Amino acid sequence: MAVVVGSLALLAACTAPGDRPSPPAPAPVASQPASDAFRPVDEQFLSQFAATNRFRMGRPQAIRLTPDGSKVLFLRSGPRTFVQDLYEFDVATGRERVLLTAEQVLGGQEETLTAEELARRERMRMTSRGIASYSMSKDGSTLLVPLSGRLFVIDRATGQKKELRSDAGFPIDPKLSRDGKLVICVREGDVYATDVATGIERRLTTGANDTISHGTAEFVAQEEMSRFDGYWLSPDSTRLLYQRTDTTGMQTFHIADPIDPTKPGQTWPYPRTGGKNAEVSLAIINLADTQGPNGTPVPVWVQWDRAQFPYLTIAKWPGIKSSLSPDAPTRNGPPTIFVMNREQTHGRLLKVDPDTGATTTLLDERDDAWISLRQSCPAWLSDGSGFLWLSEAGGTWQLELRAPDGSLVRTLTKDFDQLAPREASGKWGPGFGLDDLIHLDSARRVAYVSASSDPTQTHVWRVPLDGASPARLSNGRGMFGATFSDDSPAWVESQSTLESVMRWVVRRDAASPTPDAPGNVAGEITSVAERPRVAPAPELVRVGRFNYDVAIIRPEDFETDRMYPVIVYVYGGPSEGLVNTSREGYLLTQWMANHGFIVVAIDGRGIEGRGRTWYRSIKGNLIDLPLQDQVDALRALSDRYHELDLSRVGIFGWSFGGYFSAMATMRRPDIFHCGIAGAPVADWMDYDTYYTERYMGLPEQNPRGYEASNVLTYCKDLRVPLLIIHGTADDNVYFMHSLKMTQFLFRAGRDFDFLPLAGLTHMVPEPLVTERLQRRMLEYFMQHLAPRH
Amino acid sequence: MAVVVGSLALLAACTAPGDRPSPPAPAPVASQPASDAFRPVDEQFLSQFAATNRFRMGRPQAIRLTPDGSKVLFLRSGPRTFVQDLYEFDVATGRERVLLTAEQVLGGQEETLTAEELARRERMRMTSRGIASYSMSKDGSTLLVPLSGRLFVIDRATGQKKELRSDAGFPIDPKLSRDGKLVICVREGDVYATDVATGIERRLTTGANDTISHGTAEFVAQEEMSRFDGYWLSPDSTRLLYQRTDTTGMQTFHIADPIDPTKPGQTWPYPRTGGKNAEVSLAIINLADTQGPNGTPVPVWVQWDRAQFPYLTIAKWPGIKSSLSPDAPTRNGPPTIFVMNREQTHGRLLKVDPDTGATTTLLDERDDAWISLRQSCPAWLSDGSGFLWLSEAGGTWQLELRAPDGSLVRTLTKDFDQLAPREASGKWGPGFGLDDLIHLDSARRVAYVSASSDPTQTHVWRVPLDGASPARLSNGRGMFGATFSDDSPAWVESQSTLESVMRWVVRRDAASPTPDAPGNVAGEITSVAERPRVAPAPELVRVGRFNYDVAIIRPEDFETDRMYPVIVYVYGGPSEGLVNTSREGYLLTQWMANHGFIVVAIDGRGIEGRGRTWYRSIKGNLIDLPLQDQVDALRALSDRYHELDLSRVGIFGWSFGGYFSAMATMRRPDIFHCGIAGAPVADWMDYDTYYTERYMGLPEQNPRGYEASNVLTYCKDLRVPLLIIHGTADDNVYFMHSLKMTQFLFRAGRDFDFLPLAGLTHMVPEPLVTERLQRRMLEYFMQHLAPRH
Repeated sequence: MAVVVGSLALLAACTAPGDRPSPPAPAPVASQPASDAFRPVDEQFLSQFAATNRFRMGRPQAIRLTPDGSKVLFLRSGPRTFVQDLYEFDVATGRERVLLTAEQVLGGQEETLTAEELARRERMRMTSRGIASYSMSKDGSTLLVPLSGRLFVIDRATGQKKELRSDAGFPIDPKLSRDGKLVICVREGDVYATDVATGIERRLTTGANDTISHGTAEFVAQEEMSRFDGYWLSPDSTRLLYQRTDTTGMQTFHIADPIDPTKPGQTWPYPRTGGKNAEVSLAIINLADTQGPNGTPVPVWVQWDRAQFPYLTIAKWPGIKSSLSPDAPTRNGPPTIFVMNREQTHGRLLKVDPDTGATTTLLDERDDAWISLRQSCPAWLSDGSGFLWLSEAGGTWQLELRAPDGSLVRTLTKDFDQLAPREASGKWGPGFGLDDLIHLDSARRVAYVSASSDPTQTHVWRVPLDGASPARLSNGRGMFGATFSDDSPAWVESQSTLESVMRWVVRRDAASPTPDAPGNVAGEITSVAERPRVAPAPELVRVGRFNYDVAIIRPEDFETDRMYPVIVYVYGGPSEGLVNTSREGYLLTQWMANHGFIVVAIDGRGIEGRGRTWYRSIKGNLIDLPLQDQVDALRALSDRYHELDLSRVGIFGWSFGGYFSAMATMRRPDIFHCGIAGAPVADWMDYDTYYTERYMGLPEQNPRGYEASNVLTYCKDLRVPLLIIHGTADDNVYFMHSLKMTQFLFRAGRDFDFLPLAGLTHMVPEPLVTERLQRRMLEYFMQHLAPRH
Repeated sequence: MAVVVGSLALLAACTAPGDRPSPPAPAPVASQPASDAFRPVDEQFLSQFAATNRFRMGRPQAIRLTPDGSKVLFLRSGPRTFVQDLYEFDVATGRERVLLTAEQVLGGQEETLTAEELARRERMRMTSRGIASYSMSKDGSTLLVPLSGRLFVIDRATGQKKELRSDAGFPIDPKLSRDGKLVICVREGDVYATDVATGIERRLTTGANDTISHGTAEFVAQEEMSRFDGYWLSPDSTRLLYQRTDTTGMQTFHIADPIDPTKPGQTWPYPRTGGKNAEVSLAIINLADTQGPNGTPVPVWVQWDRAQFPYLTIAKWPGIKSSLSPDAPTRNGPPTIFVMNREQTHGRLLKVDPDTGATTTLLDERDDAWISLRQSCPAWLSDGSGFLWLSEAGGTWQLELRAPDGSLVRTLTKDFDQLAPREASGKWGPGFGLDDLIHLDSARRVAYVSASSDPTQTHVWRVPLDGASPARLSNGRGMFGATFSDDSPAWVESQSTLESVMRWVVRRDAASPTPDAPGNVAGEITSVAERPRVAPAPELVRVGRFNYDVAIIRPEDFETDRMYPVIVYVYGGPSEGLVNTSREGYLLTQWMANHGFIVVAIDGRGIEGRGRTWYRSIKGNLIDLPLQDQVDALRALSDRYHELDLSRVGIFGWSFGGYFSAMATMRRPDIFHCGIAGAPVADWMDYDTYYTERYMGLPEQNPRGYEASNVLTYCKDLRVPLLIIHGTADDNVYFMHSLKMTQFLFRAGRDFDFLPLAGLTHMVPEPLVTERLQRRMLEYFMQHLAPRH
């Protein structure tokens, strides 16, 4: 869950490096503020923050090692552009070189992307342009680079590039086969395969129309399951497993651009809470077959109880080798899928027979509240001797080694709570703090996982499959990640801490007992991201009856004998939380604080990483307990830190955090004296099935919970300033949420502030908009939390 | 121009009777305001104002006399409902009776109206439900009443009703023939005729599709020319002249309801400034003919230079009689049309040969700026000996008697300026102050016109066709109107003054030298409209270098030794202006003033009723001079009236007045310290052709004027509070206007307030919305014009 937490993204969070910030601009001498007045707005940081897309530009992205561990490929833009180029880092020499630039391909032409591609990138929270992705052959020799609707195959050694041409529509999700000989992609709802050598493209499916498509993941899979794949090529590149999606009978959403009525409106099926979902089925084709319509292969349909388990949440097609040598040929292992019931309380891991489409149950998972997903598993061992599975059934995530028939061989992580004892005791205990599988090294029979008993940190651990003790690879306090190579022990460690800019260290041997030894460190992948002009200095503490994790961000010129107005930066919904040990998350809040506020972020119940019960406490009601926790923590904080002026508290957040801010101002005006709700959900009946029903249950089974969790229920109670902000083109949390809120408020005679962002979506990557928006938000708090004289 | 001034309606204006208002609610004793504090909001008036649709409900509407002058028919709703019933007033007895109620027809069922019908009513500014219109046979014996898509023919004497049934779609604009034997209407773009006796319906045109329609006026005709007719039955009911409209190639607007994406979006052609208009042509058919497709008549196309004169602005089909007896048979006179060039600077009155479609020019009108329209003319004398024409060519409106060939017989009004000398002299002179023809009584050879040398009044005058002196029929100071009978001297006078509720007096003889004599007064048509709880007491004065007409509305508890914040209620665009002698126009502003403001309304340049030059001064730039005038008048006012605190001035208006308010706050923050812009135009390039180009010229010929008249040009300059309000379903001034304004403001870093009204159009008739809206506006001024202590 390192990349996308859930659909309601943490947009206002900023995540970027910065260890030697430029000094902040001094306050103008002429208008020296009174000691308790706010500082003049630091526009320079804001302009930098906006122009660098929150300091994300210039960081290496999509880091991938070649299987032999000799090279690290990655994408990177300049410090102030969305346009990425493709680079290669040489592990032996520690030098990098450019492999392909967007400019080389486009030659100054405008990049063109279809609405479908843009929607897909919105689901992936991807704002990049230029080379936004690439795919690599198993041996690392060949690369596929899609750009502006064109497909280029690159010989990595020579740099020679070849364009694969087609007249069949924009290529969605193009990928190279393991052997580098085929390119698969989806064009206008059908799957195509192109022979790289001849450039000849062949259509593999037929029948796509307004309601039927093949090869792409449906909306909820992309937005809520983190499943972006809709087809899976067999390891030997002879067969294809693909998804068929039928949207017949779903609610149709009609969206026009209200700022430009000359643009035709768009229409699409929406999986609205309680409503019909897309019907998903799976088929397998043999690429050599030409017996179907128009010479396409005849599909073999995968059979499972789709009535009971309509959700296809995970699909894999593992390869099996007879030996551990990298050169050993790869056979097809069994396609394996994880399917779920509508309530998300019952899931089945199924093995598929690719010849008949018949399925065999490997595992049956149940959870009274809901089953959380991890796309990393099942991870089959390359010799086919079993697979790794992640289960939360025992109350915390555990990594399990399972036999090929699904039976448990051993739980690999259960007995290791003592390895990383939690410093402060809480009523909940995350144990080992396992979060996810990062990589399985079958040859060396070790797994790499992310785990931390302290939920504000993330570490990389090596877990031997033989049941021996896990060992921690990452050092220090922070958020660490890793990328591994398929066939070598080389790896890249990402380091994000409170003290330093984010770094990507290339190491030669993941098993090295001296990870930082010069012989082991190949170098660092360069980030060209700008250094922020503010230096975040959050204090992380634990307060309150549940030992909430809290970050306190004080102004850089903090005076101990003063009281400051408080801004609560909130998400408050299902996510990893806001309180962590990465300075990237505190840039914007530090900037806000520097004007004369104390900003706090509080992780209460409903946050992941603290065990099953803590997370599941929000089942059926998304707001009551989380709101109570913010209030409790705030009070506990002010008991301990007397600089917090609880008579002046504002709250803001985006998406779920916007929903939360609206609720907080309406329901607890005694605590929250003003708020800003960015892209808020209003009524969960207007959100999507998979997210809403997971937490809220089906509407007919929980009408009271839906009523209590609905902002519209409380609009009549608003008595404090609330600024509502929403993009009119948001296709995740639709504009109607905010618009409904304004109408309920207006009709109840309640005052409010409203800022529509015309043509913008749930992500707001446009620099000018970011700049204006953050300034508006800061000024809103300055206006409404000003000292009373 | 008594009913609809132009498309940008004066929505915030309230027009209702009220002479004995209930006393306003006393301010609560507990919170007795300081002498310069605002009074608590008088909710009771607001609730009454909203629930009565601004006191319009309950007034007689659509008043029409039977030809013999014996009965007055009218529609009326209850005081708090939009649903109207049909009534008859007996001139002999002075008693009224109900002829038909909506309830009798609907029997409790919901009324259903199509989107097309709703759009047509929006163009007519008609909010009524139930019986919204009716049509009468020439002899007054038969009535046609459309209701909820059904058609009823009523025998007036017996009250018997007969329904005409059809399966051919919603009937638009149904009308009864003069002889009462036929009903014509338009269904789904084609014209139908129903034989009343047999009930058999016959289709008269074919070929309607997405771009072609027959029998209805195109958008700009309805919205900007006050021409709501698209077909004209010949007086002998044997032939039909009808309009064919082709929207091919026009810009297409796509509008979806942003609060309910499940509703399919709507698509229609929009005549956007500078863009393609609907192509309008005219055809004549003989109803007896069955030689066309599917047995329809073969059309004869009317021929004129449509390339030079694309606009069909006026069409009439007069009847001709051989004698003046009411019983003399009516022959068909010549269909007569007035066509105009795109620039609206050149028009031609054409006589049509109904057999061949050939046309003959009767008149050629030119105006360097634009030609203003009066739908009342040409008015043919019933003996065919000539027609009346209204021309502004000499600098003021003049009524002309023209021979059948169009040659001038005499100007009837030119020499009578001395009849009503203007009290205060200005640089402009309205002369006789003629505004429009009301009625032509051919038998008695007199015309009735509305005229007033004082633009704040309207009077009814009788103008003999022989060139004798006109005589004024209406007495006193006020706004008077009239409805006449075809063949008798009976008439109804509407009286709206500053002193009394609005009245409708039925008189027996328009030529009576003692109009108020008991023998002449048949009685009054009852209004059941509620009496407003506030008593408007505007002072009308003339100030400034151009002697602007100004209304000053002071609080009812006005204290002479205090200064009050000022609210400017503005329209400021082409219209009859806001300053008049009808108390109905001051109800809302009096209510506002009562809270502790002085409200002023100023009529500057660009207003009609003060001669050609005064009106034409805005040609090419809709804002510079009118804005200058508001500022000049405000300064002149404050020189004379020291209670006006010019350091606290707010401005508000709707439609053009919203546009004006936005401009005023952006361009003159030295004068206007806050503003409210309701449904404002932002960029005239986004408004319609006929309105915009009339005043602004074609875009390519006046780029500077368009730039200078564009609110978006000045958004960067906004420094004072501005509240923007707009209905998302407005199909006159589209929501995009306000949305663009918010985006230009936001991107320029300017703060603003924004209130979208989801699902509402340019008219805002919903009581709760009206109530909330007016309260919000008042409170906005209270907030931003509060005394500074």
